[in-house]
Amino acid sequence: MTINIGVIGAGRIGKVHAENIAYRIPEARVLAVADVVSEAAQGLAARLNIPLATTDYREILARPEIDAVLVCSSTDTHARIIIDAAAAGKHIFAEKPIDLDLAVVDSALAAVEKAGVKFFVGFNRRFDPTFARVREAIASGAIGDVHLLHIISRDPAPPPIAYVRVSGGMFVDMTIHDFDMARFLVGSEVEEVYTRAAVRVDPAIGAAGDVDTAVIVLTFANGAIATIDNSRRAVYGYDQRVDVLGSKGGITTGNLFPNQVTFSTAEAICRDLPLNFFMERYTESYVREIQAFIDAVVNDRPPVVTGRDGRVPIAIARAARLSYEQNRPVRLSEIG
Amino acid sequence: MTINIGVIGAGRIGKVHAENIAYRIPEARVLAVADVVSEAAQGLAARLNIPLATTDYREILARPEIDAVLVCSSTDTHARIIIDAAAAGKHIFAEKPIDLDLAVVDSALAAVEKAGVKFFVGFNRRFDPTFARVREAIASGAIGDVHLLHIISRDPAPPPIAYVRVSGGMFVDMTIHDFDMARFLVGSEVEEVYTRAAVRVDPAIGAAGDVDTAVIVLTFANGAIATIDNSRRAVYGYDQRVDVLGSKGGITTGNLFPNQVTFSTAEAICRDLPLNFFMERYTESYVREIQAFIDAVVNDRPPVVTGRDGRVPIAIARAARLSYEQNRPVRLSEIG
Amino acid sequence: MTINIGVIGAGRIGKVHAENIAYRIPEARVLAVADVVSEAAQGLAARLNIPLATTDYREILARPEIDAVLVCSSTDTHARIIIDAAAAGKHIFAEKPIDLDLAVVDSALAAVEKAGVKFFVGFNRRFDPTFARVREAIASGAIGDVHLLHIISRDPAPPPIAYVRVSGGMFVDMTIHDFDMARFLVGSEVEEVYTRAAVRVDPAIGAAGDVDTAVIVLTFANGAIATIDNSRRAVYGYDQRVDVLGSKGGITTGNLFPNQVTFSTAEAICRDLPLNFFMERYTESYVREIQAFIDAVVNDRPPVVTGRDGRVPIAIARAARLSYEQNRPVRLSEIG
Amino acid sequence: MTINIGVIGAGRIGKVHAENIAYRIPEARVLAVADVVSEAAQGLAARLNIPLATTDYREILARPEIDAVLVCSSTDTHARIIIDAAAAGKHIFAEKPIDLDLAVVDSALAAVEKAGVKFFVGFNRRFDPTFARVREAIASGAIGDVHLLHIISRDPAPPPIAYVRVSGGMFVDMTIHDFDMARFLVGSEVEEVYTRAAVRVDPAIGAAGDVDTAVIVLTFANGAIATIDNSRRAVYGYDQRVDVLGSKGGITTGNLFPNQVTFSTAEAICRDLPLNFFMERYTESYVREIQAFIDAVVNDRPPVVTGRDGRVPIAIARAARLSYEQNRPVRLSEIG
Repeated sequence: MTINIGVIGAGRIGKVHAENIAYRIPEARVLAVADVVSEAAQGLAARLNIPLATTDYREILARPEIDAVLVCSSTDTHARIIIDAAAAGKHIFAEKPIDLDLAVVDSALAAVEKAGVKFFVGFNRRFDPTFARVREAIASGAIGDVHLLHIISRDPAPPPIAYVRVSGGMFVDMTIHDFDMARFLVGSEVEEVYTRAAVRVDPAIGAAGDVDTAVIVLTFANGAIATIDNSRRAVYGYDQRVDVLGSKGGITTGNLFPNQVTFSTAEAICRDLPLNFFMERYTESYVREIQAFIDAVVNDRPPVVTGRDGRVPIAIARAARLSYEQNRPVRLSEIG
Repeated sequence: MTINIGVIGAGRIGKVHAENIAYRIPEARVLAVADVVSEAAQGLAARLNIPLATTDYREILARPEIDAVLVCSSTDTHARIIIDAAAAGKHIFAEKPIDLDLAVVDSALAAVEKAGVKFFVGFNRRFDPTFARVREAIASGAIGDVHLLHIISRDPAPPPIAYVRVSGGMFVDMTIHDFDMARFLVGSEVEEVYTRAAVRVDPAIGAAGDVDTAVIVLTFANGAIATIDNSRRAVYGYDQRVDVLGSKGGITTGNLFPNQVTFSTAEAICRDLPLNFFMERYTESYVREIQAFIDAVVNDRPPVVTGRDGRVPIAIARAARLSYEQNRPVRLSEIG
Repeated sequence: MTINIGVIGAGRIGKVHAENIAYRIPEARVLAVADVVSEAAQGLAARLNIPLATTDYREILARPEIDAVLVCSSTDTHARIIIDAAAAGKHIFAEKPIDLDLAVVDSALAAVEKAGVKFFVGFNRRFDPTFARVREAIASGAIGDVHLLHIISRDPAPPPIAYVRVSGGMFVDMTIHDFDMARFLVGSEVEEVYTRAAVRVDPAIGAAGDVDTAVIVLTFANGAIATIDNSRRAVYGYDQRVDVLGSKGGITTGNLFPNQVTFSTAEAICRDLPLNFFMERYTESYVREIQAFIDAVVNDRPPVVTGRDGRVPIAIARAARLSYEQNRPVRLSEIG
Repeated sequence: MTINIGVIGAGRIGKVHAENIAYRIPEARVLAVADVVSEAAQGLAARLNIPLATTDYREILARPEIDAVLVCSSTDTHARIIIDAAAAGKHIFAEKPIDLDLAVVDSALAAVEKAGVKFFVGFNRRFDPTFARVREAIASGAIGDVHLLHIISRDPAPPPIAYVRVSGGMFVDMTIHDFDMARFLVGSEVEEVYTRAAVRVDPAIGAAGDVDTAVIVLTFANGAIATIDNSRRAVYGYDQRVDVLGSKGGITTGNLFPNQVTFSTAEAICRDLPLNFFMERYTESYVREIQAFIDAVVNDRPPVVTGRDGRVPIAIARAARLSYEQNRPVRLSEIG
């Protein structure tokens, strides 16, 4: 059985998924690509021998041979496309976030549920071999109950200010991955959020109403306490690590590097910088997440990342922002 | 010039200081030791050829040849001895905390100031080669402004419940070292404290009114945000690490190990556990801190750890406890 | 410009190259595959949509649209196919070794030279990001003159005895990669070889006339001294490391691991085993070497791994065996 | 019971032992010190309150209260002093090498045996916590039979040429420690030696008849093969590592560092240089070896480093030199 895929949105991440399907996933093929920028759709189609390129995603939804779509367009279009795709009976893989407005998220999830299609949210880091291994170890009970979790998640450089302005803010744009990671690793639900944040990297980010440096404390239903350490700029590159303390042991992870070479000179012992950003750092995770989505469709199994997994981190991001604005712990139950 | 020292309190830490002076510090010698347990004083005196052993520290203070005393007795006696020693014109090295009551601390510090003697508080971790190197790098500007600091500070096992009951609580007993470390590394003053804590290690600790697991967020005057991750039990041993993000770079430290051996078998790549607890982990720091105290006396220079350095972490500990009790951020200015 | 490729030999390594060209090298495509086992050729052709599958490689050489061939068949057929492909004017990428007999190697290289086609030998480890980085650092002068080089090269498990019998022996089958690596890293020619070897892993290997454990000392024209440490079995997996001492610094490399997770328990600090064998460890190197070959063809540049690079390690392997048999240092000039 | 010690030779290593006994070994005390340079003996005596300082070691041997002597004088005096001390019935700790001439070594060992005193040779590295742990693991069978051992042993800088001239050559002066380490770790005897050496660091060393860069292959009776990698200059500091492959696992060791700090900047990830030389790197080993000697005396047990352990590495060093001069493997049985 081969799954026929339509890719909606031919930007950076849409290209990654299309290529991974073309080259690494034998059970699926991309039959159509849509992008509001015609050249983007045409270019990707030409490069990967995709038969249909269009500027209107509804053209893809109308094709009966399409089994599933990947929603890789801009965030403000996600919910609309999800609703339409669900109505068309297509299985859906959607990039995060579903929407910045929880009510809109809920309407999209309701449409999905009503249609009975598979729905999978693109929290790719869960499929990173390092973080998947951490989850496996925790789930297996190897370190006992989780007491403390610390997530370091720092970008090499902030995005353009124009992007910052429409991003919905750092918590929903960047920390959302860490909220998901915390839930994924701890295996429990967040009950309370406390945020301490600041503008330290670039005053223009502050002028745009956002922060660039933050610490967020999450308290979980199972008693675990997690801290997230965020910065929009670590000059040495992408920094993605976790440290877990459990009742029976601890886990620490390291960054990924382009090589395993250590240089010793008369001055210092050094190695090259880590992989610079997410496209290099999480390469393998993108392949594995699409594989997991295709597996769910092929084998008619529940997706391993659910609609609820897409919704909760958005609520946590809202709580984190509210906590920041009011400088007080915020119960997640305060958020809609 | 040789500095003549009286050691007051011949328990574990008093012995360490007495031995370090005897064996490692040529500019000083221990001439007297006092302990309310006569056998303790006698035993230490016999082992190190200390001429005077007494149960009454005032006997030491009365000796004109004594230049300085080390206050290593139980916490509840610190302030009284400091005041008496200051009145006797002795220079003072005092173990932390000075007292659990800030008013008492202030009276002790006032006595010291009035007497004009040197006063040095035993925050030994500042003298650990690893943490001293971190401070040196930050102070030199090598990583720019400090944006984020994370301190992992976990004991291998909780103290006996009898000790927990009289300890003043985890924040003033254990975290106090981390509060000092945060101030030392950041080089600025704490303005606000938020605590999230729990009883996860042993319910008996909770029954004694204390916590055993905590995350504390500190906001500094210079804008740095620090998090402290505490546990009374890391089953793999003493875990003492910091991670710093600055505007120009980052710093990460590792634990210390008894050897540098890695074993590879058909199952895993492993190494032995880290040094188990503070006496092994911080051995070198104890030598260096006493050396620093002696240097200050010999050269008539200001001690590098001051009375203020002794007081502030106690105030932070109180703020941390208040924050925990009321689940809200507490301004340090709220504490006396 | 697209380069049309014929793959001769559809075994494990032929499949790797065919897939890498299909999925990772936009400038090339595989138009034909040959294998004496018809099902192997058919299977690979079907999977990658290769138009021509045949049991006779001469059918590929007869096609005028084929620009280049990859010689991935069994070692005893390499020279014959190289000679035929050269005569047919095809560029050639050949797996190592060219042949076990140096006279045969020379006849193949003569045929290539006469035809004026590109010839590239598959010493893939040169393209591994770690070893390429080491070479780059040495070539840049960063560590000065090379004084000492140590190569650790251990397989996770020995090959089947049936394979051992026809392999030509460990030196030409396994160590040949290390001989190439030593030449590549040092950037000079080997003048003398001394071998100390033994049968420690499996007596059946000894019964087959081979060794499974060896140390080889290489002396280079530029004065560098290299040691190679070989074993057919490291129970913890594939072990591929180098250590270099230069006049201005040193370089050490580490193995590659499936994840960056460290586990701490009450017993030990552990991580998972390294990537087990060459297909996982050197995945990236295979892509990069084929890319380098295609680049040489597309841009009409000299291949970065030459015919001489294919010949010399075979001569060193013969010297290593002679040294082992006679227990004396052997000059490379003694070998034809 | 307190052991009374006489220290013969108040140079660098004599001072280390005297201080370690004074400060770290409660079961022993230094009662006398001798040095042909009167000021050296007087200075050490003054600093450690040693009652007797003399220029004539025989004065020490004449004292009945002296139980044991440490022979820390220049190498050419070792044998004479050992013979005299044995005749005087003193237990003996001797720095290595016993003598450069094996016949002289044998006469010294014969004198010791005849006198029935304890004799302990100062191969301190056996007592280094890292290498002791490696031996323990091998001896326990944890990695099975030893197949391969690689020792990296590089000094930060060569000694003065004046010293090189009288040192007996690198093999007996520096590599002797590695010969001992190889025997210690493998737990078997060397049967054959092959050396490849060169002058790469300083031509003046060559002019003095010595080498500064070497690889030595040792073949053991139990089938293990060891390589030693020596240089008189690693610009990044003292490099002391081993790598062992056994039938059931592997062991790798790392260097020791002054701190556990990693710095990340926009250029690289770095740490400070390792501990620079043997006095810092092997500090702990010196304490533990003297403790082991004292333990042997106190408890009347055989020393853990024997006279034979002192003799064999000298024979290996001679074989290594002969192998270098004749460029052939040399059987240890060829050496007297």
